[in-house]
Amino acid sequence: MQQRIRNHLLRSRVLTADEAQTFIQDGMTIGVSGFTRSGDVKAIPRALVDNIRKTENSRQIHLYSGASLGDADSWLSTQHVVDRRSPYQSDPDTRQGINCGEIRYIEQHLSHSAEWFRNEHIDLAIIEAVAITENGGIIPTTSVGNSPVFVQKAKQVIVEINLSMPESLIGIHDIYIPENRPFRTPIGITHVADRIGTPYIPCDPNKIVGIVMTDDPDSPSKIVAPDEETQQMAEYILELLSHEVKQGRLSAKLAPLQSGVGSVANAVFSGLEKSPFNQLEIYTEVMQDAVFQLFDSGKVSFASGCSFTLSESMRDHVLSSLPRYRKQLLLRPQEISNHPEVIRRLGVIAINGALEVDIYGNVNSTHVRGTHVMNGIGGSGDFARNAGLTIFVTKSTAKNGRISSVVPFVSHVDHTEHDVDILVTEQGIADLRGLSPRERAKTIIENLAHPLYKDALRDYFERACVQGGNTPHLLDEALSWHHQFKETGDMRKPVSAMM
Amino acid sequence: MQQRIRNHLLRSRVLTADEAQTFIQDGMTIGVSGFTRSGDVKAIPRALVDNIRKTENSRQIHLYSGASLGDADSWLSTQHVVDRRSPYQSDPDTRQGINCGEIRYIEQHLSHSAEWFRNEHIDLAIIEAVAITENGGIIPTTSVGNSPVFVQKAKQVIVEINLSMPESLIGIHDIYIPENRPFRTPIGITHVADRIGTPYIPCDPNKIVGIVMTDDPDSPSKIVAPDEETQQMAEYILELLSHEVKQGRLSAKLAPLQSGVGSVANAVFSGLEKSPFNQLEIYTEVMQDAVFQLFDSGKVSFASGCSFTLSESMRDHVLSSLPRYRKQLLLRPQEISNHPEVIRRLGVIAINGALEVDIYGNVNSTHVRGTHVMNGIGGSGDFARNAGLTIFVTKSTAKNGRISSVVPFVSHVDHTEHDVDILVTEQGIADLRGLSPRERAKTIIENLAHPLYKDALRDYFERACVQGGNTPHLLDEALSWHHQFKETGDMRKPVSAMM
Ligand SMILES: CC(C)(COP(=O)(O)OP(=O)(O)OC[C@H]1O[C@@H](n2cnc3c(N)ncnc32)[C@H](O)[C@@H]1OP(=O)(O)O)[C@@H](O)C(=O)NCCC(=O)NCCS
Ligand SMILES: CC(C)(COP(=O)(O)OP(=O)(O)OC[C@H]1O[C@@H](n2cnc3c(N)ncnc32)[C@H](O)[C@@H]1OP(=O)(O)O)[C@@H](O)C(=O)NCCC(=O)NCCS
Repeated sequence: MQQRIRNHLLRSRVLTADEAQTFIQDGMTIGVSGFTRSGDVKAIPRALVDNIRKTENSRQIHLYSGASLGDADSWLSTQHVVDRRSPYQSDPDTRQGINCGEIRYIEQHLSHSAEWFRNEHIDLAIIEAVAITENGGIIPTTSVGNSPVFVQKAKQVIVEINLSMPESLIGIHDIYIPENRPFRTPIGITHVADRIGTPYIPCDPNKIVGIVMTDDPDSPSKIVAPDEETQQMAEYILELLSHEVKQGRLSAKLAPLQSGVGSVANAVFSGLEKSPFNQLEIYTEVMQDAVFQLFDSGKVSFASGCSFTLSESMRDHVLSSLPRYRKQLLLRPQEISNHPEVIRRLGVIAINGALEVDIYGNVNSTHVRGTHVMNGIGGSGDFARNAGLTIFVTKSTAKNGRISSVVPFVSHVDHTEHDVDILVTEQGIADLRGLSPRERAKTIIENLAHPLYKDALRDYFERACVQGGNTPHLLDEALSWHHQFKETGDMRKPVSAMM
Repeated sequence: MQQRIRNHLLRSRVLTADEAQTFIQDGMTIGVSGFTRSGDVKAIPRALVDNIRKTENSRQIHLYSGASLGDADSWLSTQHVVDRRSPYQSDPDTRQGINCGEIRYIEQHLSHSAEWFRNEHIDLAIIEAVAITENGGIIPTTSVGNSPVFVQKAKQVIVEINLSMPESLIGIHDIYIPENRPFRTPIGITHVADRIGTPYIPCDPNKIVGIVMTDDPDSPSKIVAPDEETQQMAEYILELLSHEVKQGRLSAKLAPLQSGVGSVANAVFSGLEKSPFNQLEIYTEVMQDAVFQLFDSGKVSFASGCSFTLSESMRDHVLSSLPRYRKQLLLRPQEISNHPEVIRRLGVIAINGALEVDIYGNVNSTHVRGTHVMNGIGGSGDFARNAGLTIFVTKSTAKNGRISSVVPFVSHVDHTEHDVDILVTEQGIADLRGLSPRERAKTIIENLAHPLYKDALRDYFERACVQGGNTPHLLDEALSWHHQFKETGDMRKPVSAMM
């Protein structure tokens, strides 16, 4: 305990999780640690839900986090504790609560949320930590997320000290909080490995009203291993990168890499293991399994991120090998890992997943059929808009071919054609840079669409061109593919419908 | 001439415009000065078009600029000289060429285009200047645009020295070119008035192959004076800003202001004249008439922009009064005036025009009925995404009420719901910050829609909610308003169609 709570006055504030959950009152706005299932608070949400179940003393809160929580998102949503949720989630139960209109979801660009919270009232921050320093500084665990701004803004702070998190995590964080405007200065990161802050979140010890000791590990990530198709997509991207090096647009070390959540993004990083590239640098949001495989194979010299999101076996390996990794990585607040200023300066290569893309290159990464949210925009927009090279990946079909992921008109836009350089499916790669909309349409249809849907897309585009415009469309058919899927469960049209 | 061409060796390179146009060869990529009708090259495009008319020696080029040119865009498009056009235009003839598929238009975020040109091959740069310095430095006129990157990249440079531009323009420019990656450092602007570059565009004198002397003034802007509706919209915005000050989210000096092109944006700035705010600062792209009215009434202490776009009378006034204005303003390259890094650091208040908005807050500022481009996205995305407060304005109807500018589903997305804080029509104002999609829909319909369309929007939204989702929609009706307008010339539905 002395090692974990170094401020001796604070040692008297240790509570049980059940005692701590009483601080959570109906209607409160609560900021919690947690980013893509890691470094999230665990004991207090569970105690809260247990208490509500037992006592029927139900409470509803505004739940703000870094990004998705692990199991806590599910517990809280199932128990109807969440009134508002921001800025990101990826949990099936929360998703259901949102899509049926029960949970009010405020999706945000992950670099924007801290700016927003600065103007919000936060009642309580609950932060998972490895330890608390002599002067109250909170040392986060496997993610940083929005914890710095929550601690800064909250009236009260509760810390969950997680004993399953090794002390070797201490020192890997770099906490930098931009000054309030109009006194803000440049963010001094010019290299991936630059340290510009403190290894802890500064906190007035008087604000810390409770400390709970826990030892629950992070919920493991559910990453699917690369399959033939995702490997194929990774290969296209590696060929593209080699081509960029040859053209002199990238150096042999490439540029700092970002990869989004999901299986494809992970597969691309796995593919780098057998690539000719060396001394790679990573400037990303989430470090998935593949990042550590790349460390192990000596491909990567440094990685900067905001969280580790690991499978169970990789998690155990990483946490026990931190003394070896720690010189090569650091974790930043999401405001900094995703900051347009830094991403643009470094010229990051950004690789993110899409649900569907349209013939002009607009990307939907969030809303199935335009209505039902999957996860959220997350940091994909921060990277896509500001990267030196922006790549989106998706398989060309979903649901066994019944859905085409290349459509005439995306049913929801997260990223516009202006923010998309390269699109990749298992069918091929489309380099959209410098192309006009009609050129983009031809490239996307020919290179990316599945053979099942190619003719229908060509037919749509040709008939639309007859009607003219910079981005020709048939307004009465543009969303008919989604509508048909909703009605019949299949986007494939009977041949007669195409005549 | 000695004053205007200070490098004496260059004085021998003076050519007629007709001689200069021979440098333009078929298939060339040409970067020209010019940003929203100001500081554009004039004599050489005219000579080129004259020559093509006379000799039938037609040529086609890739025409890259800062933003829209003045009359030159029309001359070149009408004469079919333009094969590709980037990154922005606002000319009826060019628009027609694009929409019929003749001109390939590559719309870009205006802060992005310089990054793109760095990787492109530029054959020839043609730049309007006030003067050339001893060491070849080119001093731009009423806009900077992308001229620095064009000069840097082009193999050959031709300068149009415009004698109608007063020498008092010398010193108002601040030219800063970011280093190539991976050596890029922070952009050192922490205040609107900060100077970080040189007052001229550096240029190797050997690259300057010709100089043409001209005295054509900039084509005047076609700004429409504020009317009752735009004044009403300006009032809503001023009330909002007062409210933000009261809430402590803005200081009494507000934050640096940006206003987009168009009549409404201009009206808002005009409205500031009678506001309680003082010592205002402007960090914008285009300075329209109203900016100078605000200088004259002592409301504004400093304005940083990328161009002046003025009516004829204001143009004459400004150019003759520059000795008075020049301590209070400066012109930057568009890469810097629109840079996410600076906009975000300063917390700019951004006000831009929209064609239409949808019930969830997505904005279409470019494509009529989703197909026919009006102008282009311009810098609106640079500001909307990165500003501290993002406002879009549009009248609630167009074409005498036959079009609702509030629709179920925008027919083209330029700015997503995540990049829009406030929407304004003459009907009212909608503050979308912190609202979930369904809350946004209610606010938008009730506060912004025209009474002619309110019931139909309510009806759409209610029926969509029955089907569920985070952003409920009826996919078979979502674009039907636009389709109906295309077929019948009116979006108003017969009552029976709504049942
Ligand atoms: C878009 C995204 C969901 C893709 O994830 P992924 O794991 O690579 O993709 P998958 O192909 O496994 O698809 C995930 C699910 O979407 C479904 N799906 C894929 N394309 C679809 C489409 N066009 N229409 C409907 N459903 C689709 C899949 O069938 C699968 O469903 P299941 O969970 O029921 O099996 C994911 O990248 C995401 O959430 N992105 C947004 C946030 C983000 O980019 N963050 C990165 C920075 S944090
Ligand atoms: C969107 C934009 C065109 C609005 O301009 P504006 O002058 O304020 O708006 P107006 O109401 O005068 O509309 C301009 C035209 O669009 C038409 N229009 C407006 N709303 C429309 C709608 N929903 N559907 C179809 N046409 C519409 C108007 O009728 C008018 O047509 P006209 O030229 O034939 O008379 C303009 O702001 C723009 O081009 N924006 C994109 C670029 C940008 O934002 N730059 C700013 C940073 S540079």
